[in-house]
Amino acid sequence: LLTAAQRDAIDLVLVSPRNPLNIGAAARAMANFGFPHLTVVAPFEAHWQEAKSAVGAESLLQSAKHEKCLAEAVSNCTLVVGTGTLAHRRPEQPVLPLPDLAPRIAHELGHGGRAALVFGPEKHGLTRADLALCHLLVQIPTHPQQPSMNLGQAVAVCLYELAVRSHVDASSLPGDIGNASTEHPPAAMRDLDLLAAAVADAMQAAHYSPAAMQKANRHDLELLLRRLALNQPDARRILGLFRRILWRLRR
Amino acid sequence: LLTAAQRDAIDLVLVSPRNPLNIGAAARAMANFGFPHLTVVAPFEAHWQEAKSAVGAESLLQSAKHEKCLAEAVSNCTLVVGTGTLAHRRPEQPVLPLPDLAPRIAHELGHGGRAALVFGPEKHGLTRADLALCHLLVQIPTHPQQPSMNLGQAVAVCLYELAVRSHVDASSLPGDIGNASTEHPPAAMRDLDLLAAAVADAMQAAHYSPAAMQKANRHDLELLLRRLALNQPDARRILGLFRRILWRLRR
Repeated sequence: LLTAAQRDAIDLVLVSPRNPLNIGAAARAMANFGFPHLTVVAPFEAHWQEAKSAVGAESLLQSAKHEKCLAEAVSNCTLVVGTGTLAHRRPEQPVLPLPDLAPRIAHELGHGGRAALVFGPEKHGLTRADLALCHLLVQIPTHPQQPSMNLGQAVAVCLYELAVRSHVDASSLPGDIGNASTEHPPAAMRDLDLLAAAVADAMQAAHYSPAAMQKANRHDLELLLRRLALNQPDARRILGLFRRILWRLRR
Repeated sequence: LLTAAQRDAIDLVLVSPRNPLNIGAAARAMANFGFPHLTVVAPFEAHWQEAKSAVGAESLLQSAKHEKCLAEAVSNCTLVVGTGTLAHRRPEQPVLPLPDLAPRIAHELGHGGRAALVFGPEKHGLTRADLALCHLLVQIPTHPQQPSMNLGQAVAVCLYELAVRSHVDASSLPGDIGNASTEHPPAAMRDLDLLAAAVADAMQAAHYSPAAMQKANRHDLELLLRRLALNQPDARRILGLFRRILWRLRR
């Protein structure tokens, strides 16, 4: 089982949840499996207030963090895992079946990282822009005829899996899950945000992207930075380089 | 993953569910993980009718079986697994943590058996009498401070576990899970019911139990018969013996 310290290094993030019953159910599942940290991003305010009375999870909901956008919610995380049905989207990140997620997260936590498990709104799931902030996507192996799970139930299944199976020996992991150095902590999302902004500024200053391509190039940049699995010193070194370039370009 | 034939040999049984949302959520989780057979026992009729409109699980709810008592609902099963929080009860059957359930059920199905997974009403769980019909109890490893799960979420977690982890090699099972012969199918619940009735009649005819003890002795008998893990021919042989004894006693 996960230790209390490990649970403490995992955030559950709900993006724009609509149904108060689902918010309550998610909070209850967190209490059931001992995960203390809930963050809600841009909830529908009335529904959020209503949800706060969920049976058995009042204190968890009262102490939930409240953020305007996903980037802020996960800024201190080093691994962001997106969820949702993949039926209608071609994923741009690695997709892990849920039974393989626990050792990946245990590995991250074992290297001083912090993980976020992100759930989108009930109807449409995470937007393409929010998905671009995820290092990987997790897929619950549901039946092709009815792949879409209820939000509260999906949260329960994911947390059960993490709580029960995160003790798996990290040395048994395949080698291709990232090249973050084991001697340095992985780069946090806020490091990547700063880096992405600096690179995008440099692109613009260098007239790299035609106006029509700027948005698409920024999207691809977000994906690329997460694929690289940078450690913190490397992310900062590259940031320094791009700031220097930018300063030069703007002279 | 479980094969379609294996899923076909598993019944999900809800005993007196109260909340239509929970019934709908249970049905949706069944559809998500591909389990087709739902049985409801003595539901609250108005709630049951209301539940039949659950999103994405209409046909499953329409084709659900409807029984008056648990014994009837599981009469053709060879392994009955009870669920519920064990916080307030001292269990009288073996208790298996959920992560160990899938291989046990796969083993049962591999020997021609049929399994039922039984959930009690939301507030109080299964009664002592219903628990006595279970071969074993399963425990979801929840946090001691909030052990009690929402019904729909508990169903989702259990079915996820069964769907994903039932391929485990049955030969890796510990030896103490029962002594049913591998050459014969295990005794079905209806065989055990007939046997329990015959033994109870014989007890009465022989004036074995003082009146005040009859109910308790019958309860212990139900537990004993399930502990024995009889195969079908043995159950019928013992039934024949007790019928013979009974005939003698009554002459």
